[in-house]
Amino acid sequence: VDIAFTARLDADERSAWLRALKAACPGHRWIDMGDGEGPPVKANAEVAVVANPAPGALAGLTGLRLVQSLWAGVERLVADSTLPPEVPLARMVDPSMNDAMAETALWAVLSLHRSYFDYAQQQREGVWRQLPQRRAATVRVLVLGFGAMGRAVSVRLAALGYRVTAWRREGSAHAAGVDVISGQPALHAALPKAEILINLLPVTPQTRGVLSRELFTCLPRGAGVVNLGRGAHLVEADLLAALADGHVGRAVLDVFAEEPLPADHPFWRHPRVTVLPHVAALTDLDTAASVVADNLRRLALGEPLRHLVKRARGY
Amino acid sequence: VDIAFTARLDADERSAWLRALKAACPGHRWIDMGDGEGPPVKANAEVAVVANPAPGALAGLTGLRLVQSLWAGVERLVADSTLPPEVPLARMVDPSMNDAMAETALWAVLSLHRSYFDYAQQQREGVWRQLPQRRAATVRVLVLGFGAMGRAVSVRLAALGYRVTAWRREGSAHAAGVDVISGQPALHAALPKAEILINLLPVTPQTRGVLSRELFTCLPRGAGVVNLGRGAHLVEADLLAALADGHVGRAVLDVFAEEPLPADHPFWRHPRVTVLPHVAALTDLDTAASVVADNLRRLALGEPLRHLVKRARGY
Repeated sequence: VDIAFTARLDADERSAWLRALKAACPGHRWIDMGDGEGPPVKANAEVAVVANPAPGALAGLTGLRLVQSLWAGVERLVADSTLPPEVPLARMVDPSMNDAMAETALWAVLSLHRSYFDYAQQQREGVWRQLPQRRAATVRVLVLGFGAMGRAVSVRLAALGYRVTAWRREGSAHAAGVDVISGQPALHAALPKAEILINLLPVTPQTRGVLSRELFTCLPRGAGVVNLGRGAHLVEADLLAALADGHVGRAVLDVFAEEPLPADHPFWRHPRVTVLPHVAALTDLDTAASVVADNLRRLALGEPLRHLVKRARGY
Repeated sequence: VDIAFTARLDADERSAWLRALKAACPGHRWIDMGDGEGPPVKANAEVAVVANPAPGALAGLTGLRLVQSLWAGVERLVADSTLPPEVPLARMVDPSMNDAMAETALWAVLSLHRSYFDYAQQQREGVWRQLPQRRAATVRVLVLGFGAMGRAVSVRLAALGYRVTAWRREGSAHAAGVDVISGQPALHAALPKAEILINLLPVTPQTRGVLSRELFTCLPRGAGVVNLGRGAHLVEADLLAALADGHVGRAVLDVFAEEPLPADHPFWRHPRVTVLPHVAALTDLDTAASVVADNLRRLALGEPLRHLVKRARGY
């Protein structure tokens, strides 16, 4: 089939993606629409494979039967009013990205629980001092979001012995060693016990700005906050205030309202903020391309497509 | 029974230990010999409970039936010629310490594999740059030592998907997902593939200085070296040379020839050395005291004592 490809990435990254996609999905005609920043390309294409395209970038395409995102987060695609609502939209759910996200979450929790950020600070100051060490079984971790990534993170933390609660908006779920809760009352009951909070929610109108002053003041004093979701989840000024008044002890941030994080942003030099350059789970081109290949095969055979977005829900 | 207690620790730590021991082992008479630095205390005591005592500190004791170490490493006790060879010597093997050690090893491996030390450096420099991300399944980790701690570390790393080889001096062993090897030829075959090397060997005449120039030059260029064993395992000047010539890319060190690490030691300020103040696995007083209580109970009932040291072997 004819597949339109657009990715808001630099040219090198875009060609690496296209190489991986062509290798995993042979026998198609690929229409390279570049970064999609110019006027919409007019073309007939059954499929659009896209990474975070500019709004309207797909407006010139006709005959679309599937829009496949290369990114897990699709909030911009959902908000693109030029995208025909009847065209199925699939997001990336890649097991190797779930593993990568779990690695980052484990590292952040271990670093907070075992004081490794503090020891790094001590090393810079030439200080040799042993800090109290608690057993993992006494450390309460709250994971917001229980999609593929929230689940992968929760299960691995529980396997290491942490007391893990995972919150989802609604519905129930089972995962080994994890206390899965849902609904606002359960969340409000869990926050005062959450010594480490990990955000892995999707961005929706309901979750935008969820990491706010209101939430931080519910946490126990000195809590660790780990944002692995999106910059839009976090009210950055509220976090700075909560760090200043001690409600939040330390933050690990992978995502920001503006990326790259502006050079003069106070997070860069804050002694209790760890800045990661949006690397918690980089997409593995090869495994992601094989996820795309699977959906193309399903489309050709008329089988149910995987990881379809419910637009009303937003993810 | 009468129990002599000596620990080379400051007075506060010593009283915390004695409190925990008395709580876990009621009904005994405890003879507090302080830090054991003065002339040997003359006393009759069936048991000595000790933490790293000065050589000869137990020379005044008569009637000894057990020396129980509160530390896992007993190389100084083994070398103490005043200790009667017929008195059983038990070392500390505490499951909660194995967990703590595994946490530190996981944190070190995740930090090396996922470039978190590099990202910390980038943050200090205000640099936003994504570095290549590999899957855990492609990262080869070699664990030296397969006692209780080496096993705990290896199994948890394997569960996260790392390619783990564990080396022990002799004999075979099975552990899920871990390639357990033994003997010098197997070690020499494994070193050139070891991208991350973790030392968890006991200190013996054979292992002293094992982390040397000779070993570092066998590693692949840029390897990570993690010393969680003892300072005596590492030839510090050789590590500095291997860091300088690039054979070792980064080192995480928890133990040192002299502790606290002297203020003018080059490790403190080396950009590719992480200094931890001997905190990889702090003893949990309560669980350690219950390990002591178990051996006291066994001694009273004539049951086999646990975790006895083979002095000829050295651990």
